[in-house]
Amino acid sequence: MTDQPGDLLSQPHHDGSPLYLSDEAPALGSTVTVSVRTSADDPIGRMWVRTTFDAEPTYHEMSRQEPGWWRGGLPVRNPVTHYRFLLERTDGTQTWLTAAGEVSYDGSDTFDFKVVSYDPAPDWARDGVVYQIFPDRFARSAQADTRETPHWAVPATWDDTVVFEGADPRTPLQFFGGDLDGVVDHLDHVEEVGADIVYTTPVFPGESNHRYNASTFEHVDPLLGGDEAYQRLSRAVHDRGWRLLGDLTSNHTGDTHEWFRQARQGGQTRDWYYFQGEGYETWMGHHTLPKLNHANDELRRVMIEGADSVVGRWLRPPYDVDGWRIDVANMTGRLGDIDVNHDVARIIRATAAEQREATFVIGEHNHDASSDIDGDGWHGTMNYSGFSWPIWSWLRAEATEARPFGRPVAVAKRPGGLVRRSLDEWRARYGWRATTQSWNILSSHDSARIRTMVGDPAVHRLAAGLQFTLPGVPMLFAGDELGLEGVNGEDSRRPMPWHRREEWDTATLQTYGALAALRRRHVALRRGGLRWAYVDDDSLVFVREHPEETVLVAARRAAGPAIALDLPAGDLLLSTAGDERGFDGSVPDAESPALSLWRLS
Amino acid sequence: MTDQPGDLLSQPHHDGSPLYLSDEAPALGSTVTVSVRTSADDPIGRMWVRTTFDAEPTYHEMSRQEPGWWRGGLPVRNPVTHYRFLLERTDGTQTWLTAAGEVSYDGSDTFDFKVVSYDPAPDWARDGVVYQIFPDRFARSAQADTRETPHWAVPATWDDTVVFEGADPRTPLQFFGGDLDGVVDHLDHVEEVGADIVYTTPVFPGESNHRYNASTFEHVDPLLGGDEAYQRLSRAVHDRGWRLLGDLTSNHTGDTHEWFRQARQGGQTRDWYYFQGEGYETWMGHHTLPKLNHANDELRRVMIEGADSVVGRWLRPPYDVDGWRIDVANMTGRLGDIDVNHDVARIIRATAAEQREATFVIGEHNHDASSDIDGDGWHGTMNYSGFSWPIWSWLRAEATEARPFGRPVAVAKRPGGLVRRSLDEWRARYGWRATTQSWNILSSHDSARIRTMVGDPAVHRLAAGLQFTLPGVPMLFAGDELGLEGVNGEDSRRPMPWHRREEWDTATLQTYGALAALRRRHVALRRGGLRWAYVDDDSLVFVREHPEETVLVAARRAAGPAIALDLPAGDLLLSTAGDERGFDGSVPDAESPALSLWRLS
Repeated sequence: MTDQPGDLLSQPHHDGSPLYLSDEAPALGSTVTVSVRTSADDPIGRMWVRTTFDAEPTYHEMSRQEPGWWRGGLPVRNPVTHYRFLLERTDGTQTWLTAAGEVSYDGSDTFDFKVVSYDPAPDWARDGVVYQIFPDRFARSAQADTRETPHWAVPATWDDTVVFEGADPRTPLQFFGGDLDGVVDHLDHVEEVGADIVYTTPVFPGESNHRYNASTFEHVDPLLGGDEAYQRLSRAVHDRGWRLLGDLTSNHTGDTHEWFRQARQGGQTRDWYYFQGEGYETWMGHHTLPKLNHANDELRRVMIEGADSVVGRWLRPPYDVDGWRIDVANMTGRLGDIDVNHDVARIIRATAAEQREATFVIGEHNHDASSDIDGDGWHGTMNYSGFSWPIWSWLRAEATEARPFGRPVAVAKRPGGLVRRSLDEWRARYGWRATTQSWNILSSHDSARIRTMVGDPAVHRLAAGLQFTLPGVPMLFAGDELGLEGVNGEDSRRPMPWHRREEWDTATLQTYGALAALRRRHVALRRGGLRWAYVDDDSLVFVREHPEETVLVAARRAAGPAIALDLPAGDLLLSTAGDERGFDGSVPDAESPALSLWRLS
Repeated sequence: MTDQPGDLLSQPHHDGSPLYLSDEAPALGSTVTVSVRTSADDPIGRMWVRTTFDAEPTYHEMSRQEPGWWRGGLPVRNPVTHYRFLLERTDGTQTWLTAAGEVSYDGSDTFDFKVVSYDPAPDWARDGVVYQIFPDRFARSAQADTRETPHWAVPATWDDTVVFEGADPRTPLQFFGGDLDGVVDHLDHVEEVGADIVYTTPVFPGESNHRYNASTFEHVDPLLGGDEAYQRLSRAVHDRGWRLLGDLTSNHTGDTHEWFRQARQGGQTRDWYYFQGEGYETWMGHHTLPKLNHANDELRRVMIEGADSVVGRWLRPPYDVDGWRIDVANMTGRLGDIDVNHDVARIIRATAAEQREATFVIGEHNHDASSDIDGDGWHGTMNYSGFSWPIWSWLRAEATEARPFGRPVAVAKRPGGLVRRSLDEWRARYGWRATTQSWNILSSHDSARIRTMVGDPAVHRLAAGLQFTLPGVPMLFAGDELGLEGVNGEDSRRPMPWHRREEWDTATLQTYGALAALRRRHVALRRGGLRWAYVDDDSLVFVREHPEETVLVAARRAAGPAIALDLPAGDLLLSTAGDERGFDGSVPDAESPALSLWRLS
């Protein structure tokens, strides 16, 4: 969004990372120090930080301290305090430094920086790596063979092809029979990938393979092994020092849900849904997915509020879920002229915080979650808009027809400059903290697979590199690490090929493991700021900077010459192409798509 | 904000005006037709309108109808429905048409178009011209001489110099003694200016000349002539078929207010304010302006809610106010972690709608009101950010030191391209309808005078031309039409020089009258869409288009050559420089700063 030309590293910079903001969760009434890094020869004469307390703009003059650094005090008067910087150069020109870049006109507050007084997400949720498991397709334990296929299901064996074309009625019913003990059996694999947060899509029973149409929230599906199997999974995960996330559909239930059956018969749960005579509101017109009415206090108490609610109960022993991924978080509590979405988010987060130490709640959105995150609601979002679609658009194969879900056309191929702009705009809208608490996703159970999107395994590994080095928490959909394919969400739910190791893309698997290890080892990758160093159509080069270290990342989608940068030399940490060259003031020339990282001295 | 180069008139266009949106206030559940105008040779292959119902993105395919026009149906599912357009050209490239222009990357929803189901502002409030009167400085009636100077005041005679430097304690106390019958005496002047909406700053008593520190909301200040004088003013205004707007400080009262005096003594109004021991919350640290607590239900009932509230009572006979300008609307109901601002706005609007036909409420903001307008709260805002500051920045004199209020530096001089970008961004953020319901302000009682800002009377008249031809409702601060000066809000409150006619800038007065007449006569200026035709550093050229007519406006801040445009010829409506040339496919060359309008055939 910046309209200032010139060398990227010489541009004024601020973000929400420790180099620039003295406290990422300051108390109301306190004053934080905000810093702006500038080129030492940038003729800035005066600088102010402008904030809006109680929505009134006020200016606070800053001062130049050590060369190239301006600092000032920012009073924190509201839970979410907006701010930006006014720069006056010695020739009298004025610019604004916003979270989307430096601009030369008086624009709206839409890209203001934000500092947030509410507690941040727990460290584990910001520093970890998430592994998403779709239970029906992940692994069958020995017990799985003892279970009968349920009455509603279309039976499938593990090597069967997933049905997904068109609106095939078998798609949600094809039952492969993966279970929770199957997950327990393969935690060593999760460790090899480098993940430490296990997130399973729903485990409550529902008459579908995806279980987003819950029949109850009281028990784990017996087809998955039931409550005991979930307890075994929870223990196994926690024994490794890892965390476990559940998946809750707060927006709707299945039409087989006990609440809905009672409601249909005119019972006391009727007002938990939106009935009009025999008809009722649903998710996107699917009559099997009746929409919940979160304006109803009793529903709130039973489902989301307090120790005995669904949200609260599963966070305690013996289940010990560490948090929730909320399905359809964007639509929850919204219907026509009703909007209690923020209440739902706030209550779920508060319930979680009360019931367990260090809990995390993340909302599903596939467009603009900016008004819903980084307050006292969802800690973050599944960042399709701000990460997946921009990265897809940079790296997509010409041949692919895969689409961002919901969109009627394939993602367009974009040059690096526009991709950077998209990444910057979304990070600005979400705010630094909410971005770092959100998930960087290349594939999910709802999307095409990254391998299908980019085609080339080398480009896939480059994409993975961005997933682990751009701000945000990497979330892998199980199978990405093996190079699984899929043209859309349903197709991407292919069973894991445990017994077909010859199909595994072990180079990619190793890359994920190496990236996860690097992210764990290098605080700059987890908590460092982001400054762009060089961008062209085929190159995205940036530094992640932290008081303890600086890491340089160069992502190149095509061959290209060396790129000279005014940065200190550094040692190679990783090259997805197996390159071994250090950074000597130039990013080495590239022969093929690759991402490389160097720790600068 | 557009990142598409090329001829401006050939770019795809949509806005909220009748050519593009079939219903500006559709019922929930209905479908409106949205239209996009494109160049006939723009190779667009497919187009969709994307909306987010209940916050879920959905796409609706459009079709090309007559050459250059794409149309489609947009379901209106929420009271404020967001939308934008996805364009796929035949070469496979994709762009988004947003309210801030066409962009080539997948950005946030921040610049989505908006269609709003709530009732719009009444026609009179959108089609009229507002004349702002600061009663102490407008005119003294014969009765004024019979009144004694109040105990708190520093007496002044009409020709005295206004005290405003630094923090002179006399500034709010200097009392010139203008009154409401003085306003009545000069309504012919208001008619000459061409205004038809009289807006007075507060008329409730307060121990200051500005009266923003009300002592009561029960009566009009006797120093202004009291309740009877206000009734006379209201009758006189309505007898001319005009409207009258009041000014209410919902954020605070004076410390002399009867509610506050009672509160200080521990009375039942104590919780109407924010007390902590002897201390209390104020507006911006001024102890004379205690802040009201709108979370208190009793305060709401007394002040803003229902027939007997302050808001409601004055809207009925014998006062018959047609609406309210709400002072400090941005901060009202906001304090630290408390935010009931939207409740206050919604209740005031609902009360107004219940008590009188066709009422209007507008909120004061001096930065970004986008989250507070065009829902069910304020109909619009005093559009300093989206109009005043951009126009000032285009036209400011080099010598001026006058500032946007609250800003620590003078407004920067900007070229036309950045000014257009600023205008576009703010209009996008506010939405078309809220922009057209907001006030285009060149000066107010809180700001420097436009004459001081631009220096040159010819540039002043050019600025006035933009005030009357860009989307929005012109609001003149009384005295602008005579060329009064002032370096800030206080200095701008100089008494009207009724008896010093030799000082009047009659050319500017006539220009205002002519512009107001044109605006009344030409629906395109009131309700037409806005397309940019040509922009360079010194030129802003645009068309206002309506099904009934098209008006071309060329604003040029400096001499320059003719500008050829692919538009039909047209007859001159007005030139602020007295030029008499028509539009023959070229905007004539300019010799000096001027604004010209042509009605195209």
